[in-house]
Amino acid sequence: MTPTSPKLCFIHAIAIVLALASSSLHADEPLASWNDTATKQAIVEFVERVTNNDLPDYVAPEDRIATFDNDGTLWGEHPMYTQLAFAIDRVKALAPQHPEWKTKQPFKAVLENDLPALAASGEKGLLELVMVSHAGISTAEFEAIVKDWLETARHPRFKKRYTEMTFQPMLELLAYLRANDFKTFIVSGGGVEFMRPMTQAVYGIPPEQVVGSSIKTQYEVKDGKPMLMRLAEIDFIDDKTGKPVGINKFIGKRPIASFGNSAGDREMLQWTGAGDGARLMMLVFHDDAEREYAYGPADGLPDTKFGTFPQSLMDEANEKGWHVISMKNDWKSIHPADAE
Amino acid sequence: MTPTSPKLCFIHAIAIVLALASSSLHADEPLASWNDTATKQAIVEFVERVTNNDLPDYVAPEDRIATFDNDGTLWGEHPMYTQLAFAIDRVKALAPQHPEWKTKQPFKAVLENDLPALAASGEKGLLELVMVSHAGISTAEFEAIVKDWLETARHPRFKKRYTEMTFQPMLELLAYLRANDFKTFIVSGGGVEFMRPMTQAVYGIPPEQVVGSSIKTQYEVKDGKPMLMRLAEIDFIDDKTGKPVGINKFIGKRPIASFGNSAGDREMLQWTGAGDGARLMMLVFHDDAEREYAYGPADGLPDTKFGTFPQSLMDEANEKGWHVISMKNDWKSIHPADAE
Repeated sequence: MTPTSPKLCFIHAIAIVLALASSSLHADEPLASWNDTATKQAIVEFVERVTNNDLPDYVAPEDRIATFDNDGTLWGEHPMYTQLAFAIDRVKALAPQHPEWKTKQPFKAVLENDLPALAASGEKGLLELVMVSHAGISTAEFEAIVKDWLETARHPRFKKRYTEMTFQPMLELLAYLRANDFKTFIVSGGGVEFMRPMTQAVYGIPPEQVVGSSIKTQYEVKDGKPMLMRLAEIDFIDDKTGKPVGINKFIGKRPIASFGNSAGDREMLQWTGAGDGARLMMLVFHDDAEREYAYGPADGLPDTKFGTFPQSLMDEANEKGWHVISMKNDWKSIHPADAE
Repeated sequence: MTPTSPKLCFIHAIAIVLALASSSLHADEPLASWNDTATKQAIVEFVERVTNNDLPDYVAPEDRIATFDNDGTLWGEHPMYTQLAFAIDRVKALAPQHPEWKTKQPFKAVLENDLPALAASGEKGLLELVMVSHAGISTAEFEAIVKDWLETARHPRFKKRYTEMTFQPMLELLAYLRANDFKTFIVSGGGVEFMRPMTQAVYGIPPEQVVGSSIKTQYEVKDGKPMLMRLAEIDFIDDKTGKPVGINKFIGKRPIASFGNSAGDREMLQWTGAGDGARLMMLVFHDDAEREYAYGPADGLPDTKFGTFPQSLMDEANEKGWHVISMKNDWKSIHPADAE
């Protein structure tokens, strides 16, 4: 046969089509960074159940609401919450204007890099840090400061931007759910105005789908220019029992799927699971000290102060059929850079 | 020529295509219930400016945020706010369990249909009514009560459901903006959980795009069943300076277009107008006593207590280039039933 033979052309064409199909299948493969374990299977089966119009558990697209915790679920939270690292850097930057901080806790601990003393200042101390570092400026100024910090700060162990400390399998999960007409929300104990400057670029989640903790703001007109000033006063704590409250307040619908990693997510998963029909509840368990971190205290892992996963949560997960994602066994890669 | 002549067939086909195109043009005609005035022109010109990629005022789809007040802007608010009519009906329904209300204001006024006495109880009295009629039950129970009331209650003058008291031109405006990839939000002083049960069906706006006033809720587990209980405590008042605060809190982006009708919307329009680039701010002015209601006190219309439009707002609108929609002159029809 000559190269111009119609038959050869046809075979050639088929081969090209097959090659294209195979390469596109590979590119589109959902959840590529997940190992083929029961956990991945549970995700795929749930999505098939709620998206197949012929099945009794079918859910209309507008009701496919999925909520994700952020710290420890979508990005890392060790050696400390990213927002605390930001608050510490901010306190250091503001210190020259506050000579009294040299002798006053918790500021003294921050300026002397004394983490045990900082931890000893407790929740009250951390709240004081957040107020000082997050309030007293306009929302526009705060957004600019956060964006600048996210661009310049680096994670102490991995030496990368914090926005690169996201979990590749969870990014794929977000994309997979959205490809199946889910609307994905963040529901985090973190500050909503700390997260919003990066969620669209990093997670594909727009600001209006980010629920978080907040301080109060006040509308003011200065020199004819309207602005919102950030006040040193707590507005809402989106953690623990605050998560169902925040979901109801901001979303107004019960999620059919939710994803967390710590005791702060327990009530969100309870609330999600208490609805009718098919539900998917999952907890990321950080059991991979080599590639990321390992902490509990569930299953005898170290009890750290950030993202506590108590044994009682593990027991409730087992009892209620919540899936526990083992970072070590269920994930092929952890960070986006590893997957490339 | 015979009917089977190719040329005739072609002409036939063209005619059919033209007929279809024309009918579909008519069906798709945006803003059909708006008269061809400068107001309608301002809407169309704004949308063309921000959606044309070749123009300097182009806005990416994800930033096309439009916010709408509800009472008096999307649906009527006379002879009283719909939610107040609901609260009154609810107080009457609860009265048998509260014999003390017969002698206690503002309940006495409600039970005796004594509107002047009710008005005299002021904001404090109205708040007490709302608390009693909206709190002490779960969010699920409240939603069921609202849905039932919206189905059965009728407007005293028009004898229709309150959900039929929407403004047809504004429904078309919502649809027109969404067809141009705007994301439409309600930002109302009304209760968010009073609006959410109907916004999807009535306005095509899902619950998560409804911002409103709220009372606090609390997460409780009763007999193993998680629920959110509604507390008799104000959480957030989404009115006046509260509107930019609510927009920042719930949406996290500044709108490029906003629509209101009263002094409660002034700061929302200021906040919208203070952003860069093309902006559209509009106020519905109720100047049509015949087809709906006429109230101000701007332009010498009666000063009623619901949806006050003061002269100072009219002056600010004129000064800042906010468009005032004259219900009488700009709208061909008012309610959906009139347009059919």
